[in-house]
Amino acid sequence: MTYADRWLLPDGVEEILPAEAKAIDSLRRRLLDLYSTWGYDMVIPPLLEYTDSLLIGLGRDVDLLTFKVTDQLSGRTLGIRADITPQTARMDAHSFKRTGANRLCYAGHVVHTRPKNPLATRTPIQAGLEFYGEPTIAADIEVVSLLLESLALAGLPRQHIDLGHVGIYRAIAAAAGLSKVQEDAFFELLQRKATTEIRVWVDANISDSATAAWFLALPGLAGGKTVLRSARELFASLPAAQVAVDQLDQVAQVIERRYPNAELYFDLGELRGYHYLTGLVFAAFAPGYGNPIASGGRYDHIGEVFGRARPATGFAVDITAISKLGLLHKGQVAAIAVVESTDPAQWQAVQALRQQGERVVAVNGEADLAELGCDRQLLLQNGSYQVVAR
Amino acid sequence: MTYADRWLLPDGVEEILPAEAKAIDSLRRRLLDLYSTWGYDMVIPPLLEYTDSLLIGLGRDVDLLTFKVTDQLSGRTLGIRADITPQTARMDAHSFKRTGANRLCYAGHVVHTRPKNPLATRTPIQAGLEFYGEPTIAADIEVVSLLLESLALAGLPRQHIDLGHVGIYRAIAAAAGLSKVQEDAFFELLQRKATTEIRVWVDANISDSATAAWFLALPGLAGGKTVLRSARELFASLPAAQVAVDQLDQVAQVIERRYPNAELYFDLGELRGYHYLTGLVFAAFAPGYGNPIASGGRYDHIGEVFGRARPATGFAVDITAISKLGLLHKGQVAAIAVVESTDPAQWQAVQALRQQGERVVAVNGEADLAELGCDRQLLLQNGSYQVVAR
Repeated sequence: MTYADRWLLPDGVEEILPAEAKAIDSLRRRLLDLYSTWGYDMVIPPLLEYTDSLLIGLGRDVDLLTFKVTDQLSGRTLGIRADITPQTARMDAHSFKRTGANRLCYAGHVVHTRPKNPLATRTPIQAGLEFYGEPTIAADIEVVSLLLESLALAGLPRQHIDLGHVGIYRAIAAAAGLSKVQEDAFFELLQRKATTEIRVWVDANISDSATAAWFLALPGLAGGKTVLRSARELFASLPAAQVAVDQLDQVAQVIERRYPNAELYFDLGELRGYHYLTGLVFAAFAPGYGNPIASGGRYDHIGEVFGRARPATGFAVDITAISKLGLLHKGQVAAIAVVESTDPAQWQAVQALRQQGERVVAVNGEADLAELGCDRQLLLQNGSYQVVAR
Repeated sequence: MTYADRWLLPDGVEEILPAEAKAIDSLRRRLLDLYSTWGYDMVIPPLLEYTDSLLIGLGRDVDLLTFKVTDQLSGRTLGIRADITPQTARMDAHSFKRTGANRLCYAGHVVHTRPKNPLATRTPIQAGLEFYGEPTIAADIEVVSLLLESLALAGLPRQHIDLGHVGIYRAIAAAAGLSKVQEDAFFELLQRKATTEIRVWVDANISDSATAAWFLALPGLAGGKTVLRSARELFASLPAAQVAVDQLDQVAQVIERRYPNAELYFDLGELRGYHYLTGLVFAAFAPGYGNPIASGGRYDHIGEVFGRARPATGFAVDITAISKLGLLHKGQVAAIAVVESTDPAQWQAVQALRQQGERVVAVNGEADLAELGCDRQLLLQNGSYQVVAR
């Protein structure tokens, strides 16, 4: 093996160097502090769990993204978490005694077997939050508000979110009497916005022309608030779809009042996480990055597998993706150089500066002060230690 | 599978609930901020790497602690990191262009296949630092100083460290002409402080009585500064051992001056990490926890396998172990309850409080305010929003 081989990191696995690490850690702290001011308590779920609890109810996508290892202590299969949401759902169901609202937030690495897109890392750092125990739209509004606050904190020039609702496609599928296989087949075409194939599928599967119109209209129901009006007319005979549209409308009204600069875009055919989501679904995109930089939605039934179905909504922000967009402030910390002596007064001066938050770096005669970021130095002048420009 | 099975976490794998998570995150931040004021730049190494780079030069212990998975993209074996130090060594050797001092710090999870002791977690959170490029004792003194600062920050009532030096045993082994097999065999007995077996081994392997005396004395060379005087006399004819004792003495002198309350304990037979350490070795223990809560030392040659041998010294602090000691401050965040309305003045009042760092929690009529930590509420009184005790 050559040295070069040992240096190489696996594709899609990156180390993060100082300027970026500092920016990422700063965003991580500011997001967690933001969530705390809204009442969210931080939890630290483990990096790995039994796949029996980690993968339950989440569908095949997450399963394929999850690295598995054998637990030497139990012989059972462990998964390295590819998503933190199911962990917090387990914690809400089991580790908290709360019957009412339970607001949790987290930040940490997840690991994916394959990158989600060619630009994505396989070891993203996520921050996110989950709001359990509140079934009303108030929880969705709070969570969408916090997503917008997160985007602003991350320095995104535009706070743009896509909103959808899985209740609309569920209502259409139920009204058309689709089988599970049919429902999944159409969902897959819808995700790809495969217009021609959608037409062929509808011709083959839906005989009633009014019902067929619903399916054909769905991929095109995307845009500003007029989309909601169109949907209300189109699905006038489907009460479940009306409820979904009402919810989107309620969220939009409050969000527009709270965040006049936010850009809301409705996409009723966009159903990210359809297999476990149960209501509102949303995502934030940024130019130059294929996957959402943040996404979430309502997933009321996920706790059921842990014996306690609770209302749930939340989102995760991909901090690594945001960092790749180049929006975070990066810079070297300005430092004060000191050539250490045995003088106790020097040690006291150095420690006092550090306690004030200054960076003081011990240097020797050969040190490259520019490389160490030293723009000042600590010198003994007229009997006392002074910070002077170098 | 029953619900209970799904709730269970693997042995030695823990989730961390809010009060403790907040305390751990606070310590994590304060340690990283401390290291920054001394000139250490944060890096974020990846959670997994090729085992070819992750396990190199570290010996069998780390190999056994490391979970391995197959990389679907390359077919090669990946290891989930069980230790962060080799990652920073690779980064120093390869990713930095620095020829002089390079100070790096980090914080994050590592994962172990088995707990290191019955109380230890398999997913500890570590913070640590590494000082590359400085061969002199000044670097060791800086690193030991920072270890003491870390212990104080973590709230340990006594700042107690054990100091040793691998150069002493190396010098004895070389003088006795031990083979690698013999050297490892005696090292293993030394680690277990297996006095009887040590006597038997010395009888069988060392014929010269002066040399035998060195081996027999080593396990007992533990205690206060008098140990250094004894060692100096005992190893008078071994220049390499004298250098090691001199280094311990120099470190002790500066540390005693800087930190008069620190408790230094010398143990010349304690050689944690002997297989890759090359000089000073140190560890911090706390009552009630079997493994060190922090440990480190000098490991000058580790970068060699990456094509660039650099002087190196550093340590890692086991934040999870410190948290288990119960020394971190835990408490619920005091919150202000608000029953949300559509009044824009209320929204402004709430957001202003949050921007001041207050926790403001939206509640509904049924909310358990005590459970949510609300000791105050936001009410409309005489036309303006006021925070009042509840």
